[in-house]
Amino acid sequence: MKEKILRELKAGESYISGQELCQKFGVSRTAVWKHIKALKEEGYVIDSVSNKGYKLVRCPDVLTAEDIKSSLSTTWLGRTVKVMKTVDSTNLEAKRLAEAGALHGTLVTAEEQTSGKGRRGRSWISVPGQGVWMSFVLRPDIELENSSMLTLVAALAVEKGIKDAAGIDGRIKWPNDVLVNGKKVCGILTELSAQMDELNYIVVGIGINANIGQFPEEVRDKATSLLAETGETVDRTRLLCQVLKHFEQDYELFKKTEDFSELMEEYNGFLAHFGQEIKVVRGKDEYICRSEGINRRGELRVVDSLGRTQEIFSGEVSIRGIHGYSV
Amino acid sequence: MKEKILRELKAGESYISGQELCQKFGVSRTAVWKHIKALKEEGYVIDSVSNKGYKLVRCPDVLTAEDIKSSLSTTWLGRTVKVMKTVDSTNLEAKRLAEAGALHGTLVTAEEQTSGKGRRGRSWISVPGQGVWMSFVLRPDIELENSSMLTLVAALAVEKGIKDAAGIDGRIKWPNDVLVNGKKVCGILTELSAQMDELNYIVVGIGINANIGQFPEEVRDKATSLLAETGETVDRTRLLCQVLKHFEQDYELFKKTEDFSELMEEYNGFLAHFGQEIKVVRGKDEYICRSEGINRRGELRVVDSLGRTQEIFSGEVSIRGIHGYSV
Repeated sequence: MKEKILRELKAGESYISGQELCQKFGVSRTAVWKHIKALKEEGYVIDSVSNKGYKLVRCPDVLTAEDIKSSLSTTWLGRTVKVMKTVDSTNLEAKRLAEAGALHGTLVTAEEQTSGKGRRGRSWISVPGQGVWMSFVLRPDIELENSSMLTLVAALAVEKGIKDAAGIDGRIKWPNDVLVNGKKVCGILTELSAQMDELNYIVVGIGINANIGQFPEEVRDKATSLLAETGETVDRTRLLCQVLKHFEQDYELFKKTEDFSELMEEYNGFLAHFGQEIKVVRGKDEYICRSEGINRRGELRVVDSLGRTQEIFSGEVSIRGIHGYSV
Repeated sequence: MKEKILRELKAGESYISGQELCQKFGVSRTAVWKHIKALKEEGYVIDSVSNKGYKLVRCPDVLTAEDIKSSLSTTWLGRTVKVMKTVDSTNLEAKRLAEAGALHGTLVTAEEQTSGKGRRGRSWISVPGQGVWMSFVLRPDIELENSSMLTLVAALAVEKGIKDAAGIDGRIKWPNDVLVNGKKVCGILTELSAQMDELNYIVVGIGINANIGQFPEEVRDKATSLLAETGETVDRTRLLCQVLKHFEQDYELFKKTEDFSELMEEYNGFLAHFGQEIKVVRGKDEYICRSEGINRRGELRVVDSLGRTQEIFSGEVSIRGIHGYSV
């Protein structure tokens, strides 16, 4: 009910009378008043004026389950959501929930991760209250070998979610980093559990540097935030919800063919270095190729100086611009 | 130290003097006496005779870490072992340990599983104290796509471990059940965790019906135990250790080529229905083929009535004898 009232307040441009809310939801004036009081306690600034009613002035800069649910436009993704103040890592929590039977689409988000992880065990800095740190559980009925493409679906969703919520164009650094002005604003860590060749569940972890003001010296040339790039604070709930909206839509397109047939073109449109020279780093080897974008399998097609085409899929390969990390 | 004394007692045919133990391990008489006392408290029957020393009469029918460690002949498998009275499921516990960083080879075993699982979420009956219910963590540096073969390595190890410990010949029902006299004595559930196409860890769960006296009516035609088939109680610690020994050896052979090149022949020698007609059940479809054994990839080669060869790898296929479950 609180969530419904919040949704109504968010939708309204001007004041909504208590009477109207009572009638709409079939509850008493006292009930409405109690929910409004609870929302205020959570940090929502709600103006109450006699004979006019209620008006939402500002949402708190904290993530709440009601706020997320009332802003979500998805059908199944994030419909069950666990919001935490602090957690070791949202991926670990999502995996724990999945092991305990959590349903397809279950979402975990936290203000703070005390041991957030990036790929290959690298640590991920998640400044409390300044990012979107979230993980969700998927239980797709797809072949195990196709599941790694979901990490590219996530990158695409983040790209579009950032555009919606912060009004800024990012680029995807294959396979699944999102860059703004050449620096990383988002990392994605997708993990899976399987009973041998049968998929059990997938956890997609997404960390977006939303409102981080400053980065440590040593990462400043590689990492940035939406705040740093736009000069404006982004509404984290809206960002989170837009990413989930796009993920759900793109996931359905992916599921049709279990590949990137329907998403390849859009993904390549956002791809950093598309048609340009890149440096492919494989262990100690490095070589220069031209990036031709991803194929239907989500593999990166590259052409070397002799015109030979290669399709890169290994997790051990990393891509750089020829002049450094991203350029 | 307790473990070393136990190993010494196990190795000795007759009495070993306290003096001998003191000298061998460089500890005091009091220390030896305290360890012997502790072992007795754990259920070991140790005869102590003045002027002769100690003799191990009987090991308790409980699994203990000392007992397992003193009987193990492996290099890395089971060298870290957690023995529990009861657990929800040894696979779940092993996964929890793995998530917390447990090393390659870490073993979990329990007297009882309160919610033991078989493949596809089926429940697995684990009678307290009457079976070998164990799971171990592997962190192999292999391709994700090759990891499903480890479940066949486990079946092979169980087959040979049973032969060693119970002196009885089993058969492997592809991919990973072990049958004795046509009934199932062992189930294997192998699970993996990956960061997309990079393997994180594998948990191999093995349940062996060792000393179960009676089965519920409804499974009696499909399930059996070593006790039921041989009429003799099997030493569970020895069984567990023999299975681990074979697994470690066969795992090293598997690792060389990341396939069954070196194990295929032995596996096929133990395969139920090798060269015979079998029923392949795929969802609602059933068809009769001749089994030609596994190939290097661990896939089952079958030939249909028109002479066409197929290689079966899907987890959705199940194999039956043409006259029922196993015959």
